[in-house]
Amino acid sequence: MNDSPSFHMTPDEFRQAGRAVVDWIADYYERIESYPVLSQVKPGEVRSMLPPDPPQEGETFDAILADVDRIVMPGVTHWQSPNFFAYFPANASGPAILGDLLSSGLGVQGMIWATSPACTEVETHVLDWVVKMLDLPEKFLSSGDGGGVIQDSASGATLCSMLAARERITEFASNERGADGRLIAYASSQGHSSIEKAAMIAGIGRGNLRIIDVDEKYAMRPDRLQEQIEADLAQGLVPFYVAATVGTTSSNALDPLPAIGEICRKYGLWLHVDGAMSGTAALCPEFRYIHEGLELADSYAFNPHKWMFTNFDCDCFFVADRKTLIKTLSILPEYLRNKATESGAVIDYRDWHVPLGRRFRSLKLWFVIRHYGLEGLRYHVRRHVKIAQEFVRWVEGDADFELAAPAPLNVACFRHRGGDAVNQAIMDRVNAGGEMFLTHTKLDDRLTLRMSIAQTNTERRHVEKAWRLIREAAAAVTAEQA
Amino acid sequence: MNDSPSFHMTPDEFRQAGRAVVDWIADYYERIESYPVLSQVKPGEVRSMLPPDPPQEGETFDAILADVDRIVMPGVTHWQSPNFFAYFPANASGPAILGDLLSSGLGVQGMIWATSPACTEVETHVLDWVVKMLDLPEKFLSSGDGGGVIQDSASGATLCSMLAARERITEFASNERGADGRLIAYASSQGHSSIEKAAMIAGIGRGNLRIIDVDEKYAMRPDRLQEQIEADLAQGLVPFYVAATVGTTSSNALDPLPAIGEICRKYGLWLHVDGAMSGTAALCPEFRYIHEGLELADSYAFNPHKWMFTNFDCDCFFVADRKTLIKTLSILPEYLRNKATESGAVIDYRDWHVPLGRRFRSLKLWFVIRHYGLEGLRYHVRRHVKIAQEFVRWVEGDADFELAAPAPLNVACFRHRGGDAVNQAIMDRVNAGGEMFLTHTKLDDRLTLRMSIAQTNTERRHVEKAWRLIREAAAAVTAEQA
Repeated sequence: MNDSPSFHMTPDEFRQAGRAVVDWIADYYERIESYPVLSQVKPGEVRSMLPPDPPQEGETFDAILADVDRIVMPGVTHWQSPNFFAYFPANASGPAILGDLLSSGLGVQGMIWATSPACTEVETHVLDWVVKMLDLPEKFLSSGDGGGVIQDSASGATLCSMLAARERITEFASNERGADGRLIAYASSQGHSSIEKAAMIAGIGRGNLRIIDVDEKYAMRPDRLQEQIEADLAQGLVPFYVAATVGTTSSNALDPLPAIGEICRKYGLWLHVDGAMSGTAALCPEFRYIHEGLELADSYAFNPHKWMFTNFDCDCFFVADRKTLIKTLSILPEYLRNKATESGAVIDYRDWHVPLGRRFRSLKLWFVIRHYGLEGLRYHVRRHVKIAQEFVRWVEGDADFELAAPAPLNVACFRHRGGDAVNQAIMDRVNAGGEMFLTHTKLDDRLTLRMSIAQTNTERRHVEKAWRLIREAAAAVTAEQA
Repeated sequence: MNDSPSFHMTPDEFRQAGRAVVDWIADYYERIESYPVLSQVKPGEVRSMLPPDPPQEGETFDAILADVDRIVMPGVTHWQSPNFFAYFPANASGPAILGDLLSSGLGVQGMIWATSPACTEVETHVLDWVVKMLDLPEKFLSSGDGGGVIQDSASGATLCSMLAARERITEFASNERGADGRLIAYASSQGHSSIEKAAMIAGIGRGNLRIIDVDEKYAMRPDRLQEQIEADLAQGLVPFYVAATVGTTSSNALDPLPAIGEICRKYGLWLHVDGAMSGTAALCPEFRYIHEGLELADSYAFNPHKWMFTNFDCDCFFVADRKTLIKTLSILPEYLRNKATESGAVIDYRDWHVPLGRRFRSLKLWFVIRHYGLEGLRYHVRRHVKIAQEFVRWVEGDADFELAAPAPLNVACFRHRGGDAVNQAIMDRVNAGGEMFLTHTKLDDRLTLRMSIAQTNTERRHVEKAWRLIREAAAAVTAEQA
């Protein structure tokens, strides 16, 4: 029920309800470890609590918030729990949440510079900061021919890089006449699924995405890449694009950028580098080796919404040649014409990604960088890597378990020596227990458990407990089988 | 400076900073009319106030918030001002801002059902509510073969509909082998630029997007559509997709869906209907005529982030046949395999759009619907239409001005009879004055002013003042020219 004749929330009602939500979130973080990390609801259980029809009359904010507790919370898997070790993280943090809140409150739509100059300029500026923070190649700075933009996700970045590559190789003919079925893209067998999805969307076809073998570290083999390019050229096909990964989702493998980059240069292929999670490690000088060879890349993306404590969605996408990207995605209807755009003095980010509209997403990234400073961000990256390396040593020191892949940073792939069924049972058991959540992959066709140690609030004690739970589950599972 | 050894914001620090941001937003809405609606900064002015390098050490939240006032605010164009009449609105509202805040706080990533069942189920459920609220065809309900999903924007929805259409006509061969250069899409000359962008991205090529003439109301001419389809078929081309619009961006024209739909049925073309702004009008039974013929569509999208008071980004995209959409965008890497997905009992929304990751965006839509109720939402739609119709009568009653297009709902296209230069000068003058912001289009190659009357807080008095400012500007401009 809403007594205001206008039905809108008044500023004072907003103050009151806003405080309630802020307190709700603070309380949530204080009690987050009391929830089962992985939601235990059955399909349809949440929907069954929602009324079949929308309300005719408005309801009080208290009633809505109460339903969040009653209906939503049982169906939440707690990505912000320090006991979340699944997938890659999608980290929130206080300054990011509040930067996003301010963005919602301002409600600006930054499709072009003129529709809110600050939305564009803060983004360009903060992305230049990020180039410096990660010591990325200078060509990604907006002061030269390149520049950065916030995309929704690494999937969006991969798609845009593939589109720009498609247009570069066809001299912008694909945009006019449609994609060319002879274009060939390359990624390793460990590359992210978004590469295949981009090939489908961009009209390349997944049949024209060549899957390159990996070495014993699950990293792309440059020799195989070159052989495949030569084989495709011999058939009259047109190699145009390579997606390399710095920290694969499956095992955190690092593709050898220098060798891949040289091949791309030699054959004129666009090199896109996906550092979605691991790119953040380059905040610390000692981990910057992961980007060795990045100066040979045409584009690069990493997600502050993973390991840099900035709420989803926030993918930083950099290109060395912004003109090609802009020409690839540019449209200019009459109703968006304006003097600033025509002067050429401004960036219109609508031409840097798929959507036209865009939120003021750089606010949350700006808030995070300023709140933590480089010092604070490095502290947490180093802390996570250190704990993960301890976990690796615990695995290596246990005769029942083995490490399944190199663990250069903060992801450990490991398995019980008892085989796939035992590992599946261990995973199901610990996840059903609610005290932790981890996920799996397959390496060499064997079920492999993954501990991704990167959640904002994860401390050593959470990982210690996780290791204890895993070993207890293993003991129970093997006892049952005996 | 951050005294906490962990650098994280503690829950208590979050409570305090959160209240400061909530109060900042409430204050902002109270003083919003004191800002120039259109930012008056010059290119580079915002950036020039930002330090060249990121901070080494963290800063206080107070310092960050002070810089929002000092650096960001001069560069903001105030989309939430009641004097914003430009483009289409991107409306915020109290319940939407707080639903989004809760989403940021929870920080869940709903790429698949299992990663937060509530994120998926609330979305499916609320989108079913929306079908009922707008009285859309039942085939868009999730209980049948269809269903809805929240996309980032109408651009994303248009792209996904074109991809699904591409795969339907090629029997999923384009996904495998690349797009087919013989596929032909259709839209009117008044269709949104995102249709052209989608044709570029999807490998169709903008040369294969046929631009269909419009009638005197700027609506697509079905006779011309049919002629063009026949001409393309005669050339051995493959017509596959029509994008029709309910409320074009340029003039709010309504394409005749029944006739277009019959043609699409006859030739087996996918019909996508874009109701980005105007779709919201269908909340009111008296405006539901705009969707007449929608039962012939394969997909439909409208944006609650425009006229339904739900913060950007929130586009509701509905398909009649979800299997085709899912098959078009589906990828399943090992690390996302899980029992719920394999049971087939759940929706995994990652297969309904471009990105893999996704925020809990349905929370804000759920909050808005519950806060306002159907009653409150209808109240505002009716109010905006009523004020816009008054504005239309003021234009019609003034000998110096003319209406430039029919104004069925809340957008009025009009012009001074003095020609393009006068209209440009009027627009520049009122926008430079800072008391209002309106934009233009071209109709029949003549510069045309647009008043889009749909901002959350716009009341009759704001439109009255706008009309006064426009007439004063016209008088000043014509006096200068005399």
